[in-house]
Amino acid sequence: MEFGAFLLSLGTSAVIFVVLMLLFTWLSRRSGNVSIYYPNRILKGMEPWEGGSLTRNPFAWVREAFTSSEQDVVNLSGVDTAVYFVFLSTVLGIFALSGLLILPTLVPLAATDDSIKTSIRNTTDTTSEGTFSQLDNLSMANITKRSSRLWAFLGAVYWISLVTYFMLWKAYKHVSALRAQALMSTEIIPEQFAILVRDIPSPPNGQTQKEFIDSYFREIYPETFYRSLVVTENSKVNKIWGDLEGYKKKLARAEAILATTSNRPMNKTGFLGLVGKKVDSIEYYTKLINESVTDLEAEQRAVLAEKQQTAAIVFFTNRVTAASAAQSLHCQMVDKWTVTEAPEPRQLIWNNLKIKLFSRILRQYVIYFVVAVTILFYMIPITFVSAITTLKNLQKILPFIKPIVDIAFIRTILESYLPQIALIVFLMLLPKFLMFLSKAEGIPSQSHAIRAASGKYFYFSVLNVFIGVTLAGTLFDTLKELEKDPNSIVTVLATSLPKSATFFLTYVALKFFVGYGLELSRIVPLIIFHIKKKYVCKTEAEVKEAWYPGDLSYATRVPSDMLILTITFCYSVIAPLILVFAVIYFGLGWLILRNQALKVYVPSYESYGRMWPHIHTRILAALFLFQVVMFGYLGAKIFVWAILVVPLVVITLVFGYVCRQKFYKGFQHTALEVACRELKQSPDLEEIFRSYIPHSLSSHKPEDHQFKGAMSRYQDYAAISAA
Amino acid sequence: MEFGAFLLSLGTSAVIFVVLMLLFTWLSRRSGNVSIYYPNRILKGMEPWEGGSLTRNPFAWVREAFTSSEQDVVNLSGVDTAVYFVFLSTVLGIFALSGLLILPTLVPLAATDDSIKTSIRNTTDTTSEGTFSQLDNLSMANITKRSSRLWAFLGAVYWISLVTYFMLWKAYKHVSALRAQALMSTEIIPEQFAILVRDIPSPPNGQTQKEFIDSYFREIYPETFYRSLVVTENSKVNKIWGDLEGYKKKLARAEAILATTSNRPMNKTGFLGLVGKKVDSIEYYTKLINESVTDLEAEQRAVLAEKQQTAAIVFFTNRVTAASAAQSLHCQMVDKWTVTEAPEPRQLIWNNLKIKLFSRILRQYVIYFVVAVTILFYMIPITFVSAITTLKNLQKILPFIKPIVDIAFIRTILESYLPQIALIVFLMLLPKFLMFLSKAEGIPSQSHAIRAASGKYFYFSVLNVFIGVTLAGTLFDTLKELEKDPNSIVTVLATSLPKSATFFLTYVALKFFVGYGLELSRIVPLIIFHIKKKYVCKTEAEVKEAWYPGDLSYATRVPSDMLILTITFCYSVIAPLILVFAVIYFGLGWLILRNQALKVYVPSYESYGRMWPHIHTRILAALFLFQVVMFGYLGAKIFVWAILVVPLVVITLVFGYVCRQKFYKGFQHTALEVACRELKQSPDLEEIFRSYIPHSLSSHKPEDHQFKGAMSRYQDYAAISAA
Repeated sequence: MEFGAFLLSLGTSAVIFVVLMLLFTWLSRRSGNVSIYYPNRILKGMEPWEGGSLTRNPFAWVREAFTSSEQDVVNLSGVDTAVYFVFLSTVLGIFALSGLLILPTLVPLAATDDSIKTSIRNTTDTTSEGTFSQLDNLSMANITKRSSRLWAFLGAVYWISLVTYFMLWKAYKHVSALRAQALMSTEIIPEQFAILVRDIPSPPNGQTQKEFIDSYFREIYPETFYRSLVVTENSKVNKIWGDLEGYKKKLARAEAILATTSNRPMNKTGFLGLVGKKVDSIEYYTKLINESVTDLEAEQRAVLAEKQQTAAIVFFTNRVTAASAAQSLHCQMVDKWTVTEAPEPRQLIWNNLKIKLFSRILRQYVIYFVVAVTILFYMIPITFVSAITTLKNLQKILPFIKPIVDIAFIRTILESYLPQIALIVFLMLLPKFLMFLSKAEGIPSQSHAIRAASGKYFYFSVLNVFIGVTLAGTLFDTLKELEKDPNSIVTVLATSLPKSATFFLTYVALKFFVGYGLELSRIVPLIIFHIKKKYVCKTEAEVKEAWYPGDLSYATRVPSDMLILTITFCYSVIAPLILVFAVIYFGLGWLILRNQALKVYVPSYESYGRMWPHIHTRILAALFLFQVVMFGYLGAKIFVWAILVVPLVVITLVFGYVCRQKFYKGFQHTALEVACRELKQSPDLEEIFRSYIPHSLSSHKPEDHQFKGAMSRYQDYAAISAA
Repeated sequence: MEFGAFLLSLGTSAVIFVVLMLLFTWLSRRSGNVSIYYPNRILKGMEPWEGGSLTRNPFAWVREAFTSSEQDVVNLSGVDTAVYFVFLSTVLGIFALSGLLILPTLVPLAATDDSIKTSIRNTTDTTSEGTFSQLDNLSMANITKRSSRLWAFLGAVYWISLVTYFMLWKAYKHVSALRAQALMSTEIIPEQFAILVRDIPSPPNGQTQKEFIDSYFREIYPETFYRSLVVTENSKVNKIWGDLEGYKKKLARAEAILATTSNRPMNKTGFLGLVGKKVDSIEYYTKLINESVTDLEAEQRAVLAEKQQTAAIVFFTNRVTAASAAQSLHCQMVDKWTVTEAPEPRQLIWNNLKIKLFSRILRQYVIYFVVAVTILFYMIPITFVSAITTLKNLQKILPFIKPIVDIAFIRTILESYLPQIALIVFLMLLPKFLMFLSKAEGIPSQSHAIRAASGKYFYFSVLNVFIGVTLAGTLFDTLKELEKDPNSIVTVLATSLPKSATFFLTYVALKFFVGYGLELSRIVPLIIFHIKKKYVCKTEAEVKEAWYPGDLSYATRVPSDMLILTITFCYSVIAPLILVFAVIYFGLGWLILRNQALKVYVPSYESYGRMWPHIHTRILAALFLFQVVMFGYLGAKIFVWAILVVPLVVITLVFGYVCRQKFYKGFQHTALEVACRELKQSPDLEEIFRSYIPHSLSSHKPEDHQFKGAMSRYQDYAAISAA
């Protein structure tokens, strides 16, 4: 890429960013958009902005973001979000501190050397081929081989590594304290009183699953066992409940239409309301609701009596016992009565709970294999799909598109873009596919599944985007070399890096200018909301659904930040300018997401920073890759002291090991010194218990909790006959 | 080795065995030897033999061994010994079941082929060189290459593997139940009420270590915490106490001499009683004892007040809490307040308790490295030592040996045997050296250190004796081949195996005939005992010390059985005759050691079968080696279906993984369902606490337990001033 083109692309992105910022300033001050720009505050019952006035400073949000404390973030968006900001600020710190020393030393050293000029003059050198631009003059590519200036570059590798160790150590300590502080909360957190028990064996004859579980735990914890909630097979009852909720919404909608237009709304009973008999909506849905309620009650009884599974949530009367029980081996046979901390009620993946231990292990390995195959060979099915979905084949299957396709212009575009469309569709579906795979592992909670999916996505993006792009340009040139010496993969990777530096500079700039501009201005959700509000929504509930913001979506956000991080590490010494871009990326990200976290997104779960050990390990993995690449690249410059990078690689491994030993278990489990703090008030155990009953099973009459009846079969029937 | 020589060696061993058996029958019936042949029963306060009569059937011990139940073994010798018998019977079962099918099929198949005859005739075949004997005609060496008879040998590999999986699975289940049953005991076992806490941080200002620990645990376990025992630095107090005990023994001895001879005994005060002033022993030792008692009391006070370390034993009022506490993370920083189950008081390695977590990890890696170097290169220092300790050098250092060495005969012998002597000394010292290394890892208990040492010894013996002997004979011939293709190590190992078959047959036979003969007859301890009793011992305590039998010494016994097992596995298909010898070895071992366990050895610790997972893994490792070797050897016979061994290797790995998942954690920790059983009576917590106080710190006046005073500094001083 030419230097001019680079500046042009940078300029365009910057202009887009400024436009989006202005849009945000203008739009966010209009009261009709409040529910798009301040939903989190509204849902928390707060004024959209402090002071409550619209005529305020348009850049007040920047000041608010900067002055907000970590505790504000925890209060408004939870520990997980606070940990995400620790991640952003740690990475920002690493790159800022690195840049402070590296930019003033390495850039002049590179600029005053003349390897590129020499190699352009000397055209027998095959690796340059005139593709170097002015930007490359500021990078390590401009350093002559064997030059003693390389010492400075070696020093830079050390500096960056040391800064990273220091920042990561500080961050891990901080996050660990943050997690401990949140778990020590004097508030009552239901999951701190419960454990999840899986792999429960079949009860002996004459006992129900429920009785068996209760007697087992009552024997071990005679004083602190409260009660248990047996996991049941709910797919049918969920279906009925889902239908019922749908009918209720439609009834509310019909009533709203009646209230505003005074016409009784009608609808057709067939597919999607398009075909079938026309009926009066209010009467029709009222009838359906009554039928469903009867069905639901019958099915609820059936579930409790007959569909008890081999898992349960067990409740204790205090936090220490629950925390300790979740870490203790209960059964001499390790694959029976396995325990873990109970996840939050809202993030339990109910269907996975019944899966047995060895089945979970097997699933995990199978899925690792599937993911590995997907990452390595995903191009093959896409090529295959785009090959069979040629236009000719499409015309055969969908004859009605023929007239369109016959236009020469459209035909050309379609023919040339079909493979890319297949790729884009694949990349859009990938996070969902990885999430599906992670859930299929048998993971019991949403947040855990998201962590697993996010890990998979990280490996995919690093391998494909980074290594893929880097190698692709030079692959065929270097394939011959590789054939001669298969161990030279590091050298190949290292020597092909500088050629892609400009590409990645542009990539990072695009990411932060356009990506964060869109993020802050929320143009897309705003437009969708206004369309829905105007043409679709009739009831209050529907309007709320239209603006409900969702969460920060770590599953894709963290891996995409990680990719930028990996790229920056690898180029930090080769093309130090990238540090400037990375600092802007993470700095701007911190600022804009701080605003979004405080005002927009609503967290959908809380895992108390369990994401952090994974983030930590991946930052270290990126550092490791950087060190290996630098070893290769310094070697490619025929600099014998490249060997001094090896101790650094060893230190990285030792550092990772020490961190794991010192901190990791504190994230896996709740430490007892943390769980033993006094509570503000004694817990309402009945309420804690009820919070775990799925909606579809909780009775519609608040005073009658059917689960109480599940304590034994006898009581169960008694409750039913009494109802 | 010729067939005749083999038979001769076998015959000699058998004769020695018969002689030792007869000696045992005769000696064990003489009442003067009762304390050598029945010490365990005597110490348990039982009659030496049932019925109490000397004139019984000389082979009654065989019947008694066979009729003794597993429960008898547990009662008389503990769970660890019972687990050792499970090991013996499992291995016996594996080889007996394997042999039942393999011997009648493979031996005729081998005997009727004629590969060896052909190759002897065809002298261009370099691998035979006429070293094959009649025995080899019954082995796989006699099978022609590419022969379809090899199918039977492949089938045999499958059969042995399946039998092993089956027996191991059964055994693991059985041992797990055995462990659970012992831990469920209604008796009070002190270590079930305690946990070991290490890595305790420094107490905040104004608190002692003891107060800090107590307040920490009291906050977490307000109802179930009993008290704590802070680990102290005891080296000085132990020294004083040891001296005191020595003086007491000497005083008792002097008094015994006075009582029998009516002469007041005298001794010299200098080095070893050989030089110095002559004094009256009774007066001298009485004075020393009085001095030591004063010193001891002063030092005991100093230890309790000033030498508290960063570790402690913490006691709880019930077993479930202790079991659960030992498995739970207590501190958010994982390297602080680390907990484990408390070992038995008698097997605590007091000095190791204060070592910090990361120091333990570091020590472990350093020691693994030292052991690996020792195993691989132990021949180098031995060669070096024997090179510099030539006779000439020895004469220079020790001039007084010159006259002896000048005799030509002795000179020749010494010169030729010095290297061997160095090797023998090394092999004798090796178990002690490995035990020293294992303790240096920072392991807190004796049994754990023994497990660690036993593992190291296993790798040493398998690598050196088995692979060493096998390869040594053919190493130089095959080194050339290896140079050409370094991947052929498996093939080299496999093809050189058959040549060593006869050597190992003899080795196994020698082991069981002579080894078990000596074991049963206890000739050496018997002679030593009678000499000591006659010439050295004066007091009852000294006589008891002379016959005290020690324990079964797993640290060397298990690895040596394991070596036989590994050899047998590897030869089971190549030379099936070895199965007969292995069955005799393990059968005879079972019988003789059953007698020894019931009547002779006194266990010195109890770990409730924690050795088993290690034994299990090593049996599987031996099976794995066997499968790999068979893959190589079938390949060397140019049998393409050798590839069918590969799935078996995979199954072995999966089997090991599944067993680990299902059983291992039950051996690491006490399952809560096991710990929650009712006790026969409510525990005397004070007594449990006292059992952990080291002898050197327990007060000499029984009513005054100084440790009670260590609860706080104030009480401490109060106790001292009151004393």
